[in-house]
Amino acid sequence: MNKPQTLKGFRDFLPQEARKREYVIDILKGVFQLYGFEPLETPSLEYEKILMGKYGEEGNKLMYRFEDNGGRHVALRYDQTVPLARVVAQYGQELPSPFRRYQIQPVWRAENPQKGRYREFLQCDIDITGVDSPLADAEIIACALTGVQKLGFKKLMMNINDRTLFEGIDPTYLIVIDKLPKIGEEAAKQELVERGMQKEKAGAFLEKFSQMNPSENLRKLFEYLEKMGFSKGKDFVFNPLVVRGLDYYTSTIFELVDSENPSLSLAGGGRYDNLIGIFASQPIPATGLAFGFDRLLETMEERGLFPEELAVATPKVLVTVFNQELAMESVKISSHLRKSGVNTELFPEDSVKINRQLKYADKRAIPYVVIVGPEEAANGTVVLKNMRDGSQQTLSIKDLTATLASPGHALQSQLSRATIN
Amino acid sequence: MNKPQTLKGFRDFLPQEARKREYVIDILKGVFQLYGFEPLETPSLEYEKILMGKYGEEGNKLMYRFEDNGGRHVALRYDQTVPLARVVAQYGQELPSPFRRYQIQPVWRAENPQKGRYREFLQCDIDITGVDSPLADAEIIACALTGVQKLGFKKLMMNINDRTLFEGIDPTYLIVIDKLPKIGEEAAKQELVERGMQKEKAGAFLEKFSQMNPSENLRKLFEYLEKMGFSKGKDFVFNPLVVRGLDYYTSTIFELVDSENPSLSLAGGGRYDNLIGIFASQPIPATGLAFGFDRLLETMEERGLFPEELAVATPKVLVTVFNQELAMESVKISSHLRKSGVNTELFPEDSVKINRQLKYADKRAIPYVVIVGPEEAANGTVVLKNMRDGSQQTLSIKDLTATLASPGHALQSQLSRATIN
Repeated sequence: MNKPQTLKGFRDFLPQEARKREYVIDILKGVFQLYGFEPLETPSLEYEKILMGKYGEEGNKLMYRFEDNGGRHVALRYDQTVPLARVVAQYGQELPSPFRRYQIQPVWRAENPQKGRYREFLQCDIDITGVDSPLADAEIIACALTGVQKLGFKKLMMNINDRTLFEGIDPTYLIVIDKLPKIGEEAAKQELVERGMQKEKAGAFLEKFSQMNPSENLRKLFEYLEKMGFSKGKDFVFNPLVVRGLDYYTSTIFELVDSENPSLSLAGGGRYDNLIGIFASQPIPATGLAFGFDRLLETMEERGLFPEELAVATPKVLVTVFNQELAMESVKISSHLRKSGVNTELFPEDSVKINRQLKYADKRAIPYVVIVGPEEAANGTVVLKNMRDGSQQTLSIKDLTATLASPGHALQSQLSRATIN
Repeated sequence: MNKPQTLKGFRDFLPQEARKREYVIDILKGVFQLYGFEPLETPSLEYEKILMGKYGEEGNKLMYRFEDNGGRHVALRYDQTVPLARVVAQYGQELPSPFRRYQIQPVWRAENPQKGRYREFLQCDIDITGVDSPLADAEIIACALTGVQKLGFKKLMMNINDRTLFEGIDPTYLIVIDKLPKIGEEAAKQELVERGMQKEKAGAFLEKFSQMNPSENLRKLFEYLEKMGFSKGKDFVFNPLVVRGLDYYTSTIFELVDSENPSLSLAGGGRYDNLIGIFASQPIPATGLAFGFDRLLETMEERGLFPEELAVATPKVLVTVFNQELAMESVKISSHLRKSGVNTELFPEDSVKINRQLKYADKRAIPYVVIVGPEEAANGTVVLKNMRDGSQQTLSIKDLTATLASPGHALQSQLSRATIN
């Protein structure tokens, strides 16, 4: 016997969890499309040299790299931004410019697994390449804010900064600014000194950040966002302490954080005007944002933002099989219900006691059960049992269909789920 | 400059192709849910020993295997059946039994790339574990047939066989049976002889297959399928020449082929009652099917089964930006349209000539364009241009919204696509 186990940092998503993931993906996709973004998919494996050196020291260390059977040096996708840059350079004129795409695929990082950190995780990205206007940044930010609003979040605020404000500042000190909200002012001062700053300058250095003013670029961006209906101080804010870890950002940077818990970051991104140029014969400006999908889901779970219906199984009804002789009756009824667009499970075995089938429906949280015993079969009726309140009624097959058929179309699972009551 | 390129056998899916993939996935998911299947996701990487030895010699050879940073021997998912077997064994009582799940994830095989063969490709699987009744096989086959019908296929037939009919037949000769429909009788006879069969027995050997009768198990399965509304000889057929390559099948096997081109196989599967037992302390029966996603798409493309609307970009309208001064007007109108649920793209740059923006809309196949020039801004109107017939009209913003808003909800991209006319 092989011991069944998964690798550390890798996860199975059983149906209840997988349904939640599909729910969030469906909503985000809908919003991405509302903002005109188009789907893109890139391969999981790339030539190692495409990815190496784009994510700083940490990226080189955490990337999954190996030699394939043909001796090629390959690496698993580490983010979706570098593959996008490659695509934009590779397809050139074939793509429209500006090119706006969304991408929802897993990425792999050999992180030390801990709460909320995984080695395989989904990213949801939106990007616009080909334009350097703050209007493009506004579109990205507006789309992200609309996305989290549709998911039910109330107090998320986009914290926005401009890296050009950091010009002349030693990067070794910037790292401390990034940590400031988490570690506090005293610890930050101490770390600045440890990193070589004179003690008496540390206070003034931190002070300088709190007094920074937004750049002309940011002022324009804020104007666009307000015109789009977002409020400064509520939906977005200038935050000179936002630094962002990745190397490739060039000016505008942003992070979506919880107003009440600023260390909770649910999405982040910024402008990267030089990255595509590494692959193309000319520089191509770009801006974008990635959602931290796991963080989104965990926070939605904590805050009860998932609709109750997601706890219920996909099928609306289980058609039980009374015994071998009556199996064909159940087959017929389940086919009839499916033709009417009702998500229906037929119990796939003809010699299991009805009680065990009811327990099974209960375990799966299937809301209704149909029973066709000898009497019902003789009369052309069925018993419909409501698993929530235990009530049951005898119905003709026509009335059964009318009772269970949802107003929407069979293929819209989201909708039919929402109409379970 | 890094040369932008993808690995052999790996693909980018640009928006037009990615939209088709999403279309097929959405329809299949809807049908899977109609039949009571629930989503499952498993990790891309597994311990190598979970996968090795389950797919025969070829599997061991084609599997992507490597040592991770922690020295673990890992492998990329090769199919979705072995991971399912691991899941069923690993979670035991936590899962309902029968357990019916669908799974739509990429798999990796280091195949020699050729037309229609890739090294990363999507599989769409449905499986039922925990029962050994032919009713479960009937559910799988019915769901698959309904799926391809919803995709628009007309002449697909499930070819069904039972491996127990092969008992006592040398596997080395079975391989030839598998090839028979492709290579023809003469070549098959010759290969049988090459593999050691006496020349005078080869004809009788092939003859024996054509005269085989379905097992009791298959007769029961066919009865169920007919009761479900599928016709023998049209939707499904007994085919004693179906062999299926994989080692783990135990009895019922099936392959979905085109009636007019029997070498075109779009899905395949069967019963594998011993696989889960490799991971669990007891044998657990199971049956399932995998769609060849690429083959499905290619065939749909050849036969024109994709709705015309998929050639159109996701956004229904491009709101152009006339100049810097009028940019805010366009921002306002695009926000308004989005709030009304219209998939809208705002041109994300305020200094591009209108003509270039129109060309851009044309290249993207966006059906409508909104223009707000100085006159319109002064009058509170917009020009709406239909990009298909070139017609244009001046409208109030209220009428614009009424014209573009689709009857469905903003988040149902499928629906809003379908209502473009």
